[in-house]
Amino acid sequence: MAANEFSLIQTYFAHLTSGRADVVKGIGDDCALLRGPATQLLAVSIDTLVEGVHFFADVEPFRLGYKSLAVGLSDLAAMGAEPAWFTLALTLPENNTAWLESFTAGLAELAKKHNVQLVGGDTTRGPLTISIQVHGHVPEAAALRRDTARAGDKICVTGTLGDAGAALNSRLTGLSLQALSADQQAYLWSRLELPTPRNITGKMLRHRAHAAIDISDGLLADLGHILEASKLGAMLNIDSLPMSEALKQLPRTTAISLALTAGDDYELCFTVPADRLHELLETDVEVTCIGEITSVPGLVLVDHTGRVVEPPSTSIGYDHFK
Amino acid sequence: MAANEFSLIQTYFAHLTSGRADVVKGIGDDCALLRGPATQLLAVSIDTLVEGVHFFADVEPFRLGYKSLAVGLSDLAAMGAEPAWFTLALTLPENNTAWLESFTAGLAELAKKHNVQLVGGDTTRGPLTISIQVHGHVPEAAALRRDTARAGDKICVTGTLGDAGAALNSRLTGLSLQALSADQQAYLWSRLELPTPRNITGKMLRHRAHAAIDISDGLLADLGHILEASKLGAMLNIDSLPMSEALKQLPRTTAISLALTAGDDYELCFTVPADRLHELLETDVEVTCIGEITSVPGLVLVDHTGRVVEPPSTSIGYDHFK
Repeated sequence: MAANEFSLIQTYFAHLTSGRADVVKGIGDDCALLRGPATQLLAVSIDTLVEGVHFFADVEPFRLGYKSLAVGLSDLAAMGAEPAWFTLALTLPENNTAWLESFTAGLAELAKKHNVQLVGGDTTRGPLTISIQVHGHVPEAAALRRDTARAGDKICVTGTLGDAGAALNSRLTGLSLQALSADQQAYLWSRLELPTPRNITGKMLRHRAHAAIDISDGLLADLGHILEASKLGAMLNIDSLPMSEALKQLPRTTAISLALTAGDDYELCFTVPADRLHELLETDVEVTCIGEITSVPGLVLVDHTGRVVEPPSTSIGYDHFK
Repeated sequence: MAANEFSLIQTYFAHLTSGRADVVKGIGDDCALLRGPATQLLAVSIDTLVEGVHFFADVEPFRLGYKSLAVGLSDLAAMGAEPAWFTLALTLPENNTAWLESFTAGLAELAKKHNVQLVGGDTTRGPLTISIQVHGHVPEAAALRRDTARAGDKICVTGTLGDAGAALNSRLTGLSLQALSADQQAYLWSRLELPTPRNITGKMLRHRAHAAIDISDGLLADLGHILEASKLGAMLNIDSLPMSEALKQLPRTTAISLALTAGDDYELCFTVPADRLHELLETDVEVTCIGEITSVPGLVLVDHTGRVVEPPSTSIGYDHFK
């Protein structure tokens, strides 16, 4: 870490830089020194958010800070890893006190909830760009991968799908939310800007699920990564897609398209043997079974009558924003 | 890692993503899964380079790739840590094949030399910004910190100082290099754009040096961090500052100012008990003793006659670039 960003970090980020006994040396030297559990693997993931590409310039900084960490925690959840530490590379056009205070408050809210500590950073001058690397731990045999699904597995997702995409598209592509109440609209925006990483569920999936991924690019795209990595196929029932009351106010074809192709929900998609399913349906987080892994490659959509339906012709999700 | 950058990474970075047995799962899942040595600490550092702030827009991409990794490896060297893995968050204005090939070739040159493997990344669209996080390992008792210098320690540096600053200032502040040969000028530019991280020396300093830091912001600033963290002072002999033949062609006061205040040399500055000094002077890398740690706080500069001299009135180093 270069020295010149010392004061910035000490002023705004100090309350995020303590609390964990496994941080031997945190912020303030050339490297952080960290002690992981000897028998577990280190899980790491780095993600970048760029203004105008991944978020609107007028987003509340609190929400931006919150989401920047949420996307990393979601990657740890998708591996079944326990979060531990994060680093922050923050490029800022100017030293704006109010912005920094709000941004770090958003970061802090999620960091404290998940007991993750800021252990390193670099703050530089330039166009607003946020890179966060998260670090967690998982026993090797418990890690949830993409390439280990098996034919016959049930395909499940947490929470509801398409909410974040509805908010995004209301601004990007003119999707009308007039049929929704103000509360419902606010709910969709909170789903986009304050996603809840599913770390408790991720840990619970250890030794239960065969494969897992988080839904950042849309269900079809992300499930597709599991299928590709596992060299298998899937059949999905579009009438079983979990949808929020807010999303259900939209025309049904729009809602289904969003649930299938819109990203940014940061729910988990996982595959699980049928006989382990009941253990997961009894938890606090809503889990919905939406289909099954097949030995024949390819992804087939059906409705509740079993009739094959066409996938949405174009993605109306996150890709529009890039 | 989001899915959409898969193809970019697979095309240009594939040759950097294999080779180490301690990478259980590399690029291609939500997280990388890594197995560190059970009895050692994990050392991590993240650094960002922004176009127009940390490098000129017309820098050769090969050199930019090389330097982006070098600054991280230098942080590991300054902790005495053995390099292992790195992640790359790359924000690019456009998908430029020639640029990417050259950039990754520069990265690869240094990565292969130090046996560090690319284990994760995120590529996004936006203003050119490069964040690299490096990961290494060091036994706890061997880690080189800033806060552990002792009064009476000799202060040493590797290599020569001020070279990178001379190149930078020739372009930023009009410093004339006319007295230098073309080879000497090219040498200074290679010192700025292709710095050599001192990882072999850093490992050799384990159990020998009391404190260490790498010189990224200038000798006075970086030594100042050791003094502040260790609550001690220092006396430096300005006539003992190691200078290259190229730097010696400049007016002596300019050369000394650069050696004291210019950053980007990425040499190590460390403190060592006098009776361990001989072990370090016998190594391949040039090591020069330039002063001594004192129990009285503050930094005093003297010349070879012992006369106290004033520090340069203004930094002519890296800060001009920010």
